[in-house]
Amino acid sequence: MELHNLTELEILALSAEVNVADGHPRQRLTESQRAIVGKFPELFALAAGVPFEALETRAQRSYMDAVQQAAAPVGSGRIFSGYASSVCIDAVARCLSESAPRVGLIHPTFDNIPDLLKAWSVQLVPVDEDQMDASGIERAGGGDLDAVFVTTPNNPTGRVVGEAALADIAQYCAARDMVLVIDTSFRGFDVRAQYDTYELLDATGVDYAVIEDTGKLWPASELKLGMVATSERTRLQLERAMTDILLSVSPFVCLFVDALARDAADGGFEQLHRLVADNRERVRNGLRDAPNASVVETDTRVSVERIKLADGVSAALLWEQLRSRGVHVLPCGQFHWARPGDGDCFIRIALGREPEMIERAIAEIRHSLETAPELAMQSTA
Amino acid sequence: MELHNLTELEILALSAEVNVADGHPRQRLTESQRAIVGKFPELFALAAGVPFEALETRAQRSYMDAVQQAAAPVGSGRIFSGYASSVCIDAVARCLSESAPRVGLIHPTFDNIPDLLKAWSVQLVPVDEDQMDASGIERAGGGDLDAVFVTTPNNPTGRVVGEAALADIAQYCAARDMVLVIDTSFRGFDVRAQYDTYELLDATGVDYAVIEDTGKLWPASELKLGMVATSERTRLQLERAMTDILLSVSPFVCLFVDALARDAADGGFEQLHRLVADNRERVRNGLRDAPNASVVETDTRVSVERIKLADGVSAALLWEQLRSRGVHVLPCGQFHWARPGDGDCFIRIALGREPEMIERAIAEIRHSLETAPELAMQSTA
Repeated sequence: MELHNLTELEILALSAEVNVADGHPRQRLTESQRAIVGKFPELFALAAGVPFEALETRAQRSYMDAVQQAAAPVGSGRIFSGYASSVCIDAVARCLSESAPRVGLIHPTFDNIPDLLKAWSVQLVPVDEDQMDASGIERAGGGDLDAVFVTTPNNPTGRVVGEAALADIAQYCAARDMVLVIDTSFRGFDVRAQYDTYELLDATGVDYAVIEDTGKLWPASELKLGMVATSERTRLQLERAMTDILLSVSPFVCLFVDALARDAADGGFEQLHRLVADNRERVRNGLRDAPNASVVETDTRVSVERIKLADGVSAALLWEQLRSRGVHVLPCGQFHWARPGDGDCFIRIALGREPEMIERAIAEIRHSLETAPELAMQSTA
Repeated sequence: MELHNLTELEILALSAEVNVADGHPRQRLTESQRAIVGKFPELFALAAGVPFEALETRAQRSYMDAVQQAAAPVGSGRIFSGYASSVCIDAVARCLSESAPRVGLIHPTFDNIPDLLKAWSVQLVPVDEDQMDASGIERAGGGDLDAVFVTTPNNPTGRVVGEAALADIAQYCAARDMVLVIDTSFRGFDVRAQYDTYELLDATGVDYAVIEDTGKLWPASELKLGMVATSERTRLQLERAMTDILLSVSPFVCLFVDALARDAADGGFEQLHRLVADNRERVRNGLRDAPNASVVETDTRVSVERIKLADGVSAALLWEQLRSRGVHVLPCGQFHWARPGDGDCFIRIALGREPEMIERAIAEIRHSLETAPELAMQSTA
């Protein structure tokens, strides 16, 4: 297990019969999304005839509007588009290594964030998501951090850093001239994460980078935009880092994202939220009375759900048993990047799926949980 | 000028009236390419219903077949797909920094290659493309290199490392346990770069990474695949580096690339080669008798062409003057990443354009060259 990162486990699931491993959207297109795809040839022709800058600005504006970010600096030259949010995270990691190398990072979170930061020799200090406020950061970092990196809503827990808490963190960072990085990739699922982040941050004067992502929301065959926006004044050399990777994103994808974002604002998000909420209820109802597991009854709204395993039951072993039956979930150890043992009592189930897929996964998970004696943690755990 | 990398100069040109700056394909779709785009909705639906691995393998196989790479390790788990070749170069740079940090890099070449390598703290030693063979590498590196990085065909010169020279380099690297990295992004333009690289490399036992790219060939609105293939035995931890960045490329893009590659093999490459050759002739004929410039009469076949400026005429100043008239080329200083002064006597003109765009660019360049007194290099140059 320790040889693999979470993405490698997700890749194993890509061609599996029952894949509730990765958090990418794999539900069917809605009717209005299907209509957009039906216009692909026209969008492609249109993209070739419009200046790129106009297409990019339009896509960024539509997405930011859909997630209520009126103060996002669209058109200012301070939002860089990338092929995916990970490309943006990689660029931010490079910039942090150059100018803010000691970083307090939320714990747990998806492991490619700490892995990319560590690859760039950034030094990481875990900040528990339960203590993600100014005093928690101060305790964790001993007053010796250059930056804070927050994922909100968080993956896999769905935890949202609320408006007051973020203001507290931003003021703390601004007062100490620390950089604040926020990954908001899952905010489309949760209106509680859609207060105007840019207005809040700009008011504090903090040096910030905010990562946005259209890739977790719509079943768009990985046609997506990552974006990273910075404060007006920043020590991060993001333009250089991003232009070393790309000339531009796809003009066609800009138009596709623009259409999807407008559709989301026009009722698509409600449909998406309903699908995720219904699938969450399916998982909870299906596993609430399962042996050797319990439902985590938090008010999370993101497109993944965690199930807690009984004491002595290993998520890593359950993952292996399910995998041998063609069913892929994620064991949560590696989300807890500083203390993997803390997470081995959870599995993560993706909810961006058709209900039938969720039902099949639940039946298989129940079946495996019933053979829990085989899932007891070994003394090597 | 020194504040900008080449990509930043290209971005300035993206919305310009006359953009012959970037080497991305901006010609019109051919009839058969238009037919493929016409089937986008069907391709999208198909992509959602086929296991990803099958789609990726098919796209890789079709591309490798189109550029005659029969021995490419498709389906072996040794070719990783990325959103673009730069994403692959970034991952290779990370791996080199971990396990082969002293690298002999071809000179000149597009500046994002040295920039990405330097960002990862790789130490670079220039190897002149005129001396890119075993003895040239030995002379340049003093026997103290961990790896060699070759771009072939090279950008901007179009220089191809032939089969015998590559065998010589690969044997040299294998004998010294050095890594050999080859960026072949432009090979689709030049059949002389289409001998079976993988067969050659595998026969020497060298530890290699080969970067392939569909992004320079077809006007596909930046829907493309970068790929990086490694030797069976390698010290490069590429799987880890790539999975930190992405779960998978787009299934839809896999099908699009598959169709474009099959079309290329079925006559599309001939059409493309003719367009590039005709545009090259337009540039050469249009500027052969222009004042203060001369045509570089090499047998290059890639989709860019260099023009040499007369002594005392600065490419940087010509670039500025053209830019003020809405015409964008690339001044070549920064391709010469170790000695920028060596390149300031060249401008680069992109050929992946409609003939009318080339004609307009030529007329503007001629006009500017006629005012060459203003383009005389300052003593600050």
